[in-house]
Amino acid sequence: MAVKRVGNHTIKLLNPPSIIGKYSIVGPKEGDGPLRDYFDLILEDDLWGQDSWEKAECKIQEEAVRSAIENAGLTLKDMDFLIAGDLLNQIVATGYSARELAIPFFGLYGACSTMTESLSLGAMLIDGGFADKLVCATSSHFSTAERQFRFPLEYASQRTFSAQWTVTGSGATVLSSYGSGPYITYITPGRIIDPGIKDIANMGAAMAPAAMDTLIHHFQDTGFSPDDYDLIITGDLGIVGKSIVLDMMKEEGYDLGSKFTDCGVEIFNPNTQDTHAGGSGCACSAVVFNGYVLKEMEKARFKRVLFMSTGAMHSTTITQQGESIPSIGHAITIDINNE
Amino acid sequence: MAVKRVGNHTIKLLNPPSIIGKYSIVGPKEGDGPLRDYFDLILEDDLWGQDSWEKAECKIQEEAVRSAIENAGLTLKDMDFLIAGDLLNQIVATGYSARELAIPFFGLYGACSTMTESLSLGAMLIDGGFADKLVCATSSHFSTAERQFRFPLEYASQRTFSAQWTVTGSGATVLSSYGSGPYITYITPGRIIDPGIKDIANMGAAMAPAAMDTLIHHFQDTGFSPDDYDLIITGDLGIVGKSIVLDMMKEEGYDLGSKFTDCGVEIFNPNTQDTHAGGSGCACSAVVFNGYVLKEMEKARFKRVLFMSTGAMHSTTITQQGESIPSIGHAITIDINNE
Repeated sequence: MAVKRVGNHTIKLLNPPSIIGKYSIVGPKEGDGPLRDYFDLILEDDLWGQDSWEKAECKIQEEAVRSAIENAGLTLKDMDFLIAGDLLNQIVATGYSARELAIPFFGLYGACSTMTESLSLGAMLIDGGFADKLVCATSSHFSTAERQFRFPLEYASQRTFSAQWTVTGSGATVLSSYGSGPYITYITPGRIIDPGIKDIANMGAAMAPAAMDTLIHHFQDTGFSPDDYDLIITGDLGIVGKSIVLDMMKEEGYDLGSKFTDCGVEIFNPNTQDTHAGGSGCACSAVVFNGYVLKEMEKARFKRVLFMSTGAMHSTTITQQGESIPSIGHAITIDINNE
Repeated sequence: MAVKRVGNHTIKLLNPPSIIGKYSIVGPKEGDGPLRDYFDLILEDDLWGQDSWEKAECKIQEEAVRSAIENAGLTLKDMDFLIAGDLLNQIVATGYSARELAIPFFGLYGACSTMTESLSLGAMLIDGGFADKLVCATSSHFSTAERQFRFPLEYASQRTFSAQWTVTGSGATVLSSYGSGPYITYITPGRIIDPGIKDIANMGAAMAPAAMDTLIHHFQDTGFSPDDYDLIITGDLGIVGKSIVLDMMKEEGYDLGSKFTDCGVEIFNPNTQDTHAGGSGCACSAVVFNGYVLKEMEKARFKRVLFMSTGAMHSTTITQQGESIPSIGHAITIDINNE
């Protein structure tokens, strides 16, 4: 068995990489939400001087990456790798951002699971001695996602109550082989799980079983219980998905209790912001992690966090062919102490 | 500097992973081409009993992965990771294939660079001790790509002479920490390079500078010259891109000479198959590698190969907004001997 594996699905990092830089950019709606004080930059409009939403998303991701590197006190040339992806067809927000950055690049597609997918791969590349410093990033944009996955915004379509609101923004994290933490200490990569749900306005329910599969593997492999964490936070299950995971994990013998929340639940106020089941999109967990979670870890309010972005891997083409929504979640443990 | 880095961009694997399983599936047109005898399975029709081309591509990739694992004498449960991607929006060929396989999964998007992107990441995860065995894969399909990127097939559009023909098929490779080779010994990941070409029917020219950037970094970092290789083979530059790389590398002082070819040039006969500038698509380099290259390495005709899949990272949406085509190439060294 490989030396860094624990149980069937989990990696234990022997030289845990440190998070040495972070940055979050959000759109105006996210800047009106409950986490507004945690974000590094709140845009006044979601075009940010560009002539299309797609180009705005490229700029948002590029600036988040540049700023995270600056936050680490480093330059683009110090980065061994950029590991990133986004929701758009052919991940163009990432590809065109990477063009400007000129860092050796691995492109990912993990839908809204991308932030922990990139942190998982990035942490292993550092721990394994393949890189000293690298940057992980993702982005999403309400307006690019709506027109790609749903309807033209001009239709002003009604949204069902289980629907989520794609977060506009980008989060970037710089990992290094040196640094004083917080550290990525464990990784539990996910598998694709598909409960058969075909309602694309109910992605929280579609993603819940994938989130559970990874959580259960994580606890079984490591021997940890929810009590070993100060915070367990999923990516964008939203209000519907969070409540399913809470109930069904209890049936499996894991009481996540008050330590458990979801980035999609935290980022908006559903009573005043008309966001129904909460936030979604690759940026949802990326900005909540690089904003809220890491800044509260700096204050040592959270000493040990289990963070899992979750993604729904369908496309409009295959949904129109009658397919259900397969999903995935990748979990990582963040410790302020290197065990 | 990280212990496994050589020069600015290259990784030297200290515990080189062995290729212990491989499989290639192609469509009928590829089965009529010059490499027909190297492929493991040639389909009689490109729907393969499915009711859509997308579902056929899912099935093709799933079967290639299952068969590569079987070729290694292993089962699905032996695989620590599946690392894969494809050309389709939200990489659905891979996501739905991964759903059936239930292996912990990292989804990639690297356009036609996906095969060496997955082998690069896979090799590092094995070398770093994070996995004992994993499978890397990609697929493409002429009919899914045409309708997504170009025109409905029913239009019977004319193709320009610089256009390439998307390969229908899938290639999968099993890597392991044990085995008797061939071994992956060096990795030179690429950066996004964009020469400003906007003609989506001339992707060979768009990708050529990215291919050159990686090749030059590889030779500079390692101190190798083209003479150190028996074969240097790029992904899908096609006839146009190959000739640009050959000429421009000569200007840079590297005579690739007769050792250099391209998977897109080898897979079809342009005189009899009406494929214009050659093959393309993620599967192009995947099936040529898992078919032709590895089978000739078994016979020791090639002892040392530099293999680089190349990808064009545009989307129809961003092309319609006037953007040019950014590209990338990831190179890996395959040795029949572990140095």
